[in-house]
Amino acid sequence: MSTAGKSIKCKAAVCWGAGEELKIEEVEVAPPKAHEVRIHILHTGICHTDEYTRSGKDPEGLFPVILGHEGGGIVESVGEGVTNVAVGDHVIPLYTAECRECKFCKSGKTNLCGKVRATQGKGVMPDGTSRFSINGKPIHHFMGTSTFSQYTVVADVSVVAVDKKAPLEKVCLLGCGITTAWGAVVKQAGIKGSTVAVFGCGAIGLGVIATSQLVGASRIIAVDTNPGKEAWAMKFGATEFINPTQLPEGTRIQDHLVEVTDGGLDFTFDCTGNVHVMRAALEACHKGWGVSTVIGVAAAGQEITTRPFQLVTGRTWRGSAFGGVKGRTEIPGLVEDYLNGKVKIDEYVTHHRKLDGMNAGFHDMHAGDCIRCVVDMA
Amino acid sequence: MSTAGKSIKCKAAVCWGAGEELKIEEVEVAPPKAHEVRIHILHTGICHTDEYTRSGKDPEGLFPVILGHEGGGIVESVGEGVTNVAVGDHVIPLYTAECRECKFCKSGKTNLCGKVRATQGKGVMPDGTSRFSINGKPIHHFMGTSTFSQYTVVADVSVVAVDKKAPLEKVCLLGCGITTAWGAVVKQAGIKGSTVAVFGCGAIGLGVIATSQLVGASRIIAVDTNPGKEAWAMKFGATEFINPTQLPEGTRIQDHLVEVTDGGLDFTFDCTGNVHVMRAALEACHKGWGVSTVIGVAAAGQEITTRPFQLVTGRTWRGSAFGGVKGRTEIPGLVEDYLNGKVKIDEYVTHHRKLDGMNAGFHDMHAGDCIRCVVDMA
Repeated sequence: MSTAGKSIKCKAAVCWGAGEELKIEEVEVAPPKAHEVRIHILHTGICHTDEYTRSGKDPEGLFPVILGHEGGGIVESVGEGVTNVAVGDHVIPLYTAECRECKFCKSGKTNLCGKVRATQGKGVMPDGTSRFSINGKPIHHFMGTSTFSQYTVVADVSVVAVDKKAPLEKVCLLGCGITTAWGAVVKQAGIKGSTVAVFGCGAIGLGVIATSQLVGASRIIAVDTNPGKEAWAMKFGATEFINPTQLPEGTRIQDHLVEVTDGGLDFTFDCTGNVHVMRAALEACHKGWGVSTVIGVAAAGQEITTRPFQLVTGRTWRGSAFGGVKGRTEIPGLVEDYLNGKVKIDEYVTHHRKLDGMNAGFHDMHAGDCIRCVVDMA
Repeated sequence: MSTAGKSIKCKAAVCWGAGEELKIEEVEVAPPKAHEVRIHILHTGICHTDEYTRSGKDPEGLFPVILGHEGGGIVESVGEGVTNVAVGDHVIPLYTAECRECKFCKSGKTNLCGKVRATQGKGVMPDGTSRFSINGKPIHHFMGTSTFSQYTVVADVSVVAVDKKAPLEKVCLLGCGITTAWGAVVKQAGIKGSTVAVFGCGAIGLGVIATSQLVGASRIIAVDTNPGKEAWAMKFGATEFINPTQLPEGTRIQDHLVEVTDGGLDFTFDCTGNVHVMRAALEACHKGWGVSTVIGVAAAGQEITTRPFQLVTGRTWRGSAFGGVKGRTEIPGLVEDYLNGKVKIDEYVTHHRKLDGMNAGFHDMHAGDCIRCVVDMA
């Protein structure tokens, strides 16, 4: 019997307050309103941004909330006016919407759609209300996606259909980390034939390494303080691995990199979220033309710092959110690249959990041997 | 009688120590060695970088020294192997050399030639010695140019010949400020049809305003705390002028600019050297695509700071030295643009001094009504 138009009761991992463990609850998921899509989530990754809000460090965090933004599922029903996806489509929710109508989308210069940004930041749907409730009490949405629920509702501008041949337990990871890394590299002109350093070898860093190799970087130096990441970095395409903690006493990583590269890197990427590493990544760039991209998300209130001389002598400091990728336009192609073997996804998945193991999945993330934990929501 | 091959005794403004006023002295200028050029300097501008070193704030300042880096003169003699200029040529010394052979020159990505950088920074010629002396005691060169002497010696890679039709008392200013401003704008793609804010309306800021108008910016907002600069900014092409000190109490200039431009500027330029202004210039950029260029030179030890979120949400922080201009290749064209009325120079000259009024020229620079003081060296 169709569930369309009716509320659905299902399980979700709910975070009731800052710093609390998630609790598996029965939630009521209201049907999608106009230009909304209800999705049966089958798999979701766990990402550091989920942990950032859960931990209470995010000053804009709202509770109670259903976290999760790296999901894959099947469209259960659609609200009035939805034309871009249909019931039964395999889809990936997008925390970076793409409306194709706002000033940002039409600029041709950025993927930062403005259409649902304000309400998304407030943990509600574009009409200002939530579709999640427990005993009538509303639960906040998160990043417009809330993939830690078996059913979620998203704006139609915040979802993309993908090839049904692609396993959702893999391509769910395109909802954040892998796409972010891929976009940060492919949208940066000039990496072919150039030297690259990647700071941090988590999922994002490994994705930057793999994509740098894909586009033809001549030298890819991976940097991580965890020696266990060396094998991972090399497997994903790094040509060298440097552990900054093993440099001679007093040697800064940026100075070491400038020395071993005869002047510095053409491109560097910060994939750590640590503002001191962001500085090192900029200062490891070659004078005259080096470009450093900040991908990692720093904790609230932290600031990056450098001498302006670093910029005046020709280095560029930039950043990237979701890799600059327009999700509705570009993710279907990324899925094809995955199916054709051009883009790695399977290799990132080190851990699996069931929904009732969600908290264990968060603990996995803190262990040095986890790249990505995928949660089976069934 | 030819002076070629002989030492020349002439007058120069010498700074004997950090913080001291300049003294007009008789100096001995040795003949040029191989790949060196001796120039009879006829005119020179005075720039804040001269004052920075004179004042003692520059930790790398060397004394005694002959300052000056914005000069124009006539080649008196050339050393062995010099082919790019000849005796009698009208020339502009270049503090940013262009050898066309080093890694930097050949990269096609930067104007920061590496050929004479190390010795230039030590206040000597490429062979490690000075051509200036007083009673046998060597006097340091400055920025490879030392235009505060009636005769100076520069490396052949550090000088460019220009059209003799151009008055040297004007085009000497192409040795620094005007070229720096011009290059920072023309080498930045996308300014045509875009919005621009310029922080600081000294010679560099006015040059950025004029060049932004030249390339077709749609809106040019000039920002300066000196109300006397409004008329100057408008004369050079600004469409608006904002005095940050006249905003309502507690309103930051970047927030005001974001508000009046519906999201921020496409391009901003810091022409102040103040690190707090550099931050404001970045944060006044439009989310998603704004680009901020640091042109001003900050005092030693000062650092720029911002939240990395500013970069992650699509702003770019870059810098420019000598406007990214390759002096030998590009200044002749700039001189032609001046002669054809496309590039302003005369309009910057507010003050004139003779060599014995050099200190007065430095005082002029601190007065709010001085854009550029040109010193007649004869």
